[in-house]
Amino acid sequence: MSEQERRRIAFTVQYDGGPYHGWQLQREHRSVQGELEGVLTKVFAGPARVLGSGRTDRGVHATGQVAAVDAPVRWTAAELRRAMNALLPQEVWIARAEEVDAKFHPRYGAVSRSYAYRIGVLETASSPFHRRWCWPVGKEVDEEKLRGEAASVVGEHSFAAFAKAGQEKRGDRCVVTEAEWQRWGDLGIEFSITANRFLHHMVRYLVGTMVEIGLGRRPEGDTGRLLEAELGLTTSPPAPPEGLFLTGVRYPEGTYPTGDGGGGRLKAIQL
Amino acid sequence: MSEQERRRIAFTVQYDGGPYHGWQLQREHRSVQGELEGVLTKVFAGPARVLGSGRTDRGVHATGQVAAVDAPVRWTAAELRRAMNALLPQEVWIARAEEVDAKFHPRYGAVSRSYAYRIGVLETASSPFHRRWCWPVGKEVDEEKLRGEAASVVGEHSFAAFAKAGQEKRGDRCVVTEAEWQRWGDLGIEFSITANRFLHHMVRYLVGTMVEIGLGRRPEGDTGRLLEAELGLTTSPPAPPEGLFLTGVRYPEGTYPTGDGGGGRLKAIQL
Repeated sequence: MSEQERRRIAFTVQYDGGPYHGWQLQREHRSVQGELEGVLTKVFAGPARVLGSGRTDRGVHATGQVAAVDAPVRWTAAELRRAMNALLPQEVWIARAEEVDAKFHPRYGAVSRSYAYRIGVLETASSPFHRRWCWPVGKEVDEEKLRGEAASVVGEHSFAAFAKAGQEKRGDRCVVTEAEWQRWGDLGIEFSITANRFLHHMVRYLVGTMVEIGLGRRPEGDTGRLLEAELGLTTSPPAPPEGLFLTGVRYPEGTYPTGDGGGGRLKAIQL
Repeated sequence: MSEQERRRIAFTVQYDGGPYHGWQLQREHRSVQGELEGVLTKVFAGPARVLGSGRTDRGVHATGQVAAVDAPVRWTAAELRRAMNALLPQEVWIARAEEVDAKFHPRYGAVSRSYAYRIGVLETASSPFHRRWCWPVGKEVDEEKLRGEAASVVGEHSFAAFAKAGQEKRGDRCVVTEAEWQRWGDLGIEFSITANRFLHHMVRYLVGTMVEIGLGRRPEGDTGRLLEAELGLTTSPPAPPEGLFLTGVRYPEGTYPTGDGGGGRLKAIQL
């Protein structure tokens, strides 16, 4: 099929990461990308390659992942969205679909990404209706301390201390434009962070360390000291994946709109 | 083990019914009762029989199911709750546990039961974070009509028309003390109903019929006409199980407290 007979369609994808081994296609395991490609191969009656804005780890959720596919021109974005939502399992949902420029790339075109991380403070956050989508810490975490730590994250830093070692070819500097803790209703607290890029496991290491500080188990200021690579200091274990959501990806104006899932707080789950 | 060495402990059980073939123990399938008995057999190091307040169908959830077990006296209610929550899968959670009178029976002692049913009106209720626990109708349903229909349900009636045929030995009369529709945040609407007893599939048949009326697909007043057993009239198909929650069971004062899950609206999911 020649290139003229395709149009690029971009999607905002929401998923419950629980049953998946992450976004990225894998031979042996269920992945969100694999789920989308399976459905698109069916509706296109031919191969479909889905581009994503970036990987999410096993068990991590998304309310604002962005992806794109080159679809045969017989498909409009709206029709394709309807067909996909009818065929996808209930854990994956296309919240938005739009035709974009043929050069739009969800990964290389991204200006920033946002994540949110939910922590259950009340014991009731352990109920089956919340635990699926939070880290049920089950005790009070000092919010003042958390906010102090988050403040030190904003700006440009090397995040090498907060990443799985040895996997970043593009260096370890990230520019964080937003990092804050807010209440998640009565049940807990929520961290939201926006940056131009993220290292592998970075949000989970940040949250794991800040929560230990908020619980009084390590000294205030350790987040900043880790960013300054103070000798002999290491992070706390990463927070578990269930609490983490990719909430949005931003692109230059006029390419693909951020949509509902765009940036900052976790709006899709209106608790 | 002699009877003196046991104490009866009652529980409030919450569950995500999605992965289960209902409450009731079954040889071939996963059930919530089976899950609880499996864990209790382990911690008691001996057989455990769990009594429930009543069955819930395959896929139906609970925020306030009540159950009881006779535990060896070495277990306090609080310890048993902790041990169970540590061992149960994340879809089942013990919200409360208390020692009760040895004659307390979750089923025969119940005075009333309450259910809630959630319908998604906005399309965003189809997202993975809501669809698990609602019926995503995805269009506006006339709330005034729904409220009118619900009003006709209150009181004592034969609910034979709203039940799976031929399974009720104790007759088909139920006394409904509450039946109302309310907003579920921005996303949809929620039906809550309390009665002394319920017939098999009764809430799902009621909701299925009322929603058809609210969508303008059958005449207003049909709920009342079905309760009066008007000739030739049948219900609409039952609403799907994902939207249904057993929210509470009430007992005479001083036996087992209703707790968080008690009656009426769906408080456990604070949307």
